[in-house]
Amino acid sequence: MNRITDPTLLLDEQKARDNIRRMAQKARQKGLELKPHFKTHQSLTVGRWFKDEGIKKITVSSVEMAEYFAGDGWSDITIAFPLNPRTLGRVQALAENIELSLIISDPEIIPILAQGISTDIGLYIEVDTGSGRTGFQPVREDVIRQIINSITRHHHLRFLGFYSHPGHSYRARSASQILEIQHRAVQQMNKLKTLFGDRWGPLRCCIGDTPSCSAGEKWDGIDEISPGNFVFYDLMQVKIGACQPENIAVALACPVVAIYPDRSEIAVHGGAIHLSKDYLKYGDDPVYGRLVSLSKDNRWESSIKDCYVRSVSQEHGIIRCSDKVIRELKLGNLVGILPVHSCLAADTMRQYVLCQSMAYVTHMRGPKP
Amino acid sequence: MNRITDPTLLLDEQKARDNIRRMAQKARQKGLELKPHFKTHQSLTVGRWFKDEGIKKITVSSVEMAEYFAGDGWSDITIAFPLNPRTLGRVQALAENIELSLIISDPEIIPILAQGISTDIGLYIEVDTGSGRTGFQPVREDVIRQIINSITRHHHLRFLGFYSHPGHSYRARSASQILEIQHRAVQQMNKLKTLFGDRWGPLRCCIGDTPSCSAGEKWDGIDEISPGNFVFYDLMQVKIGACQPENIAVALACPVVAIYPDRSEIAVHGGAIHLSKDYLKYGDDPVYGRLVSLSKDNRWESSIKDCYVRSVSQEHGIIRCSDKVIRELKLGNLVGILPVHSCLAADTMRQYVLCQSMAYVTHMRGPKP
Repeated sequence: MNRITDPTLLLDEQKARDNIRRMAQKARQKGLELKPHFKTHQSLTVGRWFKDEGIKKITVSSVEMAEYFAGDGWSDITIAFPLNPRTLGRVQALAENIELSLIISDPEIIPILAQGISTDIGLYIEVDTGSGRTGFQPVREDVIRQIINSITRHHHLRFLGFYSHPGHSYRARSASQILEIQHRAVQQMNKLKTLFGDRWGPLRCCIGDTPSCSAGEKWDGIDEISPGNFVFYDLMQVKIGACQPENIAVALACPVVAIYPDRSEIAVHGGAIHLSKDYLKYGDDPVYGRLVSLSKDNRWESSIKDCYVRSVSQEHGIIRCSDKVIRELKLGNLVGILPVHSCLAADTMRQYVLCQSMAYVTHMRGPKP
Repeated sequence: MNRITDPTLLLDEQKARDNIRRMAQKARQKGLELKPHFKTHQSLTVGRWFKDEGIKKITVSSVEMAEYFAGDGWSDITIAFPLNPRTLGRVQALAENIELSLIISDPEIIPILAQGISTDIGLYIEVDTGSGRTGFQPVREDVIRQIINSITRHHHLRFLGFYSHPGHSYRARSASQILEIQHRAVQQMNKLKTLFGDRWGPLRCCIGDTPSCSAGEKWDGIDEISPGNFVFYDLMQVKIGACQPENIAVALACPVVAIYPDRSEIAVHGGAIHLSKDYLKYGDDPVYGRLVSLSKDNRWESSIKDCYVRSVSQEHGIIRCSDKVIRELKLGNLVGILPVHSCLAADTMRQYVLCQSMAYVTHMRGPKP
């Protein structure tokens, strides 16, 4: 405990491994291939925990991330982000070394790919099942048909099927709302699979968000899932209804730097550059994180009732606390904060410390070991 | 231009130097000492631009940041963040090498400081002039008197005066609202200076937020200002009324990765891990950034009307665009995004590229040169 002097992202290996195992088991039971998204952890060490569960294919969100994990022996990677033409040379180099798949989110990319890439590459068409981010609405069958025609004109471009990230599940506030979104996405994907499978099949369908993959039970017609956040989960996933608070595998350890009993608040070193600015709303009050007690081995139980981060600035976190908690705290104590959005907390921290061993775990964008 | 392949934070040196020069001139005219806050840029190179304007004393927000700039020859540093007792040894080492000042935001830190630090150190009492973050409300004269008594009992702790960050100025939406907040803070600080100056004076008063320091004209009784954000400014400061759009000195260069004419939207590589999740609201619509055209030398004019980032996820930015702009864009083009909050965009990017020379400028938390 004493080695921690500054805001530190604690990672409970057991919880993360449990989250991975649970998702892998579920995928096996449902006959789905789990191609986990590695954008949340961005860590070679955590990646190896997936290998321990038999995972062989992964999903990433940038060319840089594909290069990073290919360097650690991952040989089947899908970049689930619209191709940036400025990275064509690097994509070609990757395709020469691993089984690489991309998503098509704009038809104009196909001639660029056809000309810029000379190696065999797999392509999913991205379907916008309601998130409104990228991809094609499933009703645009004419556009989708044109894209398939355009892909299949080039022998080194292999049309694999359809990919969707139903990110609108993040706006759900209960498991039943998630299930509605997941059900609709499964239907939409199946319709496309049937429509285009006769001529271009067999096709594969992949769905990629943690809420759907955590809560969804009926997956007929879907072949692959690629959730990412589930490895750590967070308060948003609890609120959405995708996990339980005890599944959250990361907490930010923060030193207490000021205690204000008359305001029922404390200030910690731990702010927007550690937690990010993502928040949840409870009534009118934003919540940027919830307080947990840290044990001697830097682990935590469930969050402390009525104790939450009410505001963050660059380095400050202001935590509303019960009087009982305030009475027990001293300046310099470490408290834990469960993040609202673990993907962003991990990306801003760029390094983990394992709870018990206090070993550092590297992150793609963090300091080199 | 062509060297940029991934999201890149462009820094217009001329604009930043102009912002520095303008604030330095204003401080001189008003008889204020400018002790700029370096938390926004966190860069040794940008720090030297301040030296060119005759700046000798600086403000930072962490012990790590004080160490970083002390290593580049800065010899008078105020850490404007409540002292974290876990860093006492490092604070002692700093105090042995430079003129170090801290702020007192909790009376309990004084015995810890008195015992843990053996070298001469300057202390400001932090006054909460309305932000509700840290420090003491100015009406709590009894508490403030006790703190001064407690400080002055130890010969190596020097009571310097009062410090305030009127961060509630960030909630202002016009220059006149800023002026009200600034005026009130100046009044509150003056009252304390008069009340305690007779016995413990001469005292110094320091005010630290960019909106007040940009818009405020009347500073009687204030000795020092320590704004930070003004070096780059951003869309929030424009909305607050603290600067003009043309003063913004950083823009995120993003490759266009999908174009959706029927939605009047484009997708770029550039999301929450590049811009942060800070946003402004216009009516019901959040704005995470505004679009600018990048010239051949990677500079930009004012933002393009009606073109703004309407949502960000980890790597995606979705930009609402006019049809005219959409018609002119091609996949792989670079567009610029003016950030809502430059402090966080700089902290997430952790590296700058100078517009014309394309030289890299390092950031404390970024890759080492």
